[in-house]
Amino acid sequence: MIALQFIEFGAVVASACYGILLASRKRMDFVGLFCVACAVAFGGGTLRDLCLDRQPLFWIQNGQYPVIVFGLAAVGAIAPGTMLRLERRLAIPDALGLGLFTIVGTGYAVEAEAPLFVAALIGVMTGAFGGVIADVICNEVPTIFRPAPLYASCSFAGAWVYIGGECLGWEHSLTLALSLGTVVFFRLASLKWDWRLPSVSHPEDPSGG
Amino acid sequence: MIALQFIEFGAVVASACYGILLASRKRMDFVGLFCVACAVAFGGGTLRDLCLDRQPLFWIQNGQYPVIVFGLAAVGAIAPGTMLRLERRLAIPDALGLGLFTIVGTGYAVEAEAPLFVAALIGVMTGAFGGVIADVICNEVPTIFRPAPLYASCSFAGAWVYIGGECLGWEHSLTLALSLGTVVFFRLASLKWDWRLPSVSHPEDPSGG
Amino acid sequence: MIALQFIEFGAVVASACYGILLASRKRMDFVGLFCVACAVAFGGGTLRDLCLDRQPLFWIQNGQYPVIVFGLAAVGAIAPGTMLRLERRLAIPDALGLGLFTIVGTGYAVEAEAPLFVAALIGVMTGAFGGVIADVICNEVPTIFRPAPLYASCSFAGAWVYIGGECLGWEHSLTLALSLGTVVFFRLASLKWDWRLPSVSHPEDPSGG
Repeated sequence: MIALQFIEFGAVVASACYGILLASRKRMDFVGLFCVACAVAFGGGTLRDLCLDRQPLFWIQNGQYPVIVFGLAAVGAIAPGTMLRLERRLAIPDALGLGLFTIVGTGYAVEAEAPLFVAALIGVMTGAFGGVIADVICNEVPTIFRPAPLYASCSFAGAWVYIGGECLGWEHSLTLALSLGTVVFFRLASLKWDWRLPSVSHPEDPSGG
Repeated sequence: MIALQFIEFGAVVASACYGILLASRKRMDFVGLFCVACAVAFGGGTLRDLCLDRQPLFWIQNGQYPVIVFGLAAVGAIAPGTMLRLERRLAIPDALGLGLFTIVGTGYAVEAEAPLFVAALIGVMTGAFGGVIADVICNEVPTIFRPAPLYASCSFAGAWVYIGGECLGWEHSLTLALSLGTVVFFRLASLKWDWRLPSVSHPEDPSGG
Repeated sequence: MIALQFIEFGAVVASACYGILLASRKRMDFVGLFCVACAVAFGGGTLRDLCLDRQPLFWIQNGQYPVIVFGLAAVGAIAPGTMLRLERRLAIPDALGLGLFTIVGTGYAVEAEAPLFVAALIGVMTGAFGGVIADVICNEVPTIFRPAPLYASCSFAGAWVYIGGECLGWEHSLTLALSLGTVVFFRLASLKWDWRLPSVSHPEDPSGG
């Protein structure tokens, strides 16, 4: 399980970097950088814990993560260029983190006896909604709701692989590897070949398709 | 109580349609349509359940509703025009849903021994705040906070009728009918005769009234 | 403890005034004024209570506060100028309230055995995040995340003074006075001498520093 802790650590770092760059695009100060980074890194898990009534929250129990995000935000405030160079190398940790958080969230929801479709949604929420909260705070329409390389969809696919494995009684580590692999493969493939869902035009919009 | 289930179903459909049209106005993709529709349909009830510490949440317990919203979002993505035609017929289901959710929310809050004024607020939150959350996600100032045909006010009036009936010991089905009728009547009348509250100008705004 | 209740009352009034003026800048109606004022006044405490699983929520238990905010919003809708004159005298109550809510939040988190750094963050959330929620609802990038006289930082400093006092076993009333004094002093000094954190430019922004 030491491997899972490495993935979790990488995911927090990747999320925080995304948040710090987003906040600096809005010319926030250090407070903004730190809070937006926390929103990306801990927002999805917090929503999940509130929805499933799990206490204490993820980031309260793992008190080291807010400290790490604080340190990253400090680096982002002093040397913004570092953050950018760091983020460029974070596509793989980010995809791994999306996969891990999806699976953990789905697993908790299945444990809490949520209906399967709802469990998959809670997996996606855990993996992908930190970024949604951060985008909303920064006054942006959430990136993952707009046509862009697939993100939530990869998480959704992986959640169903996990649920399938659990229902069919596969060995736990196999289910874990297959569902994590599904998310990572689809995410990296979407980035590489620019897979995206089409945008929907409002039916009354004259410029729409 | 089968009638109440029909009203609930209609309210979820009406809420989802509002969300899908809102999201398509922002040119989101299917993920955005589905998530915004869920925010409208389940946001108010989720806020209520979190504030009153009720578990499991409304949409986790009624796992069929997220599936219905998923289907509607798919229709909205493939044939946006259908959604528009559907929404035009949804003023009555929407008003009924506003009424039902207001009453249910107020009732839960009274049960939890909240002060009466707070119970009315929680009723309004249940009925009307899904739309607020969706508007905020879509980067819009919430519609129900701006001058427009009365919405939250109708819900607030109905909540007080319900509370009055409970305090005066009316028969439960009479209280239910009267408070539901109050919300629906005020909402439809506001739409028909364009009743609205005036906007407030900032005192330092030179163009203000 | 009667003094603390006066401070709490003053803080709710100051928060509500901020919210009412913010909402009127967006030309909302009475519903918007009231809801945004509630978001400022109760948002931070609600987040804290949800994160620490405390029930009933602050504003449900103290049912008089929503009524007071309702009254203030009515005054704000009828005589907006009053609100502005009121707010100009509210810098001190607001700073006292920031201090009080920070300390209460930090104290609850320490009680719940949160790690100390997390406890300080929850103190800041309690004191300062109502305004963040209101800004997000009003479609503004949160004020306290942008370069402006220090606000969250004053709260953070006071939280650490409180934690320090508790860890070193100071007498409770001394710890209280010192940490409250720290927040108020830093906040009023920041306002007077315009202390602020620098904004961070995005590394790829050509107009950035």
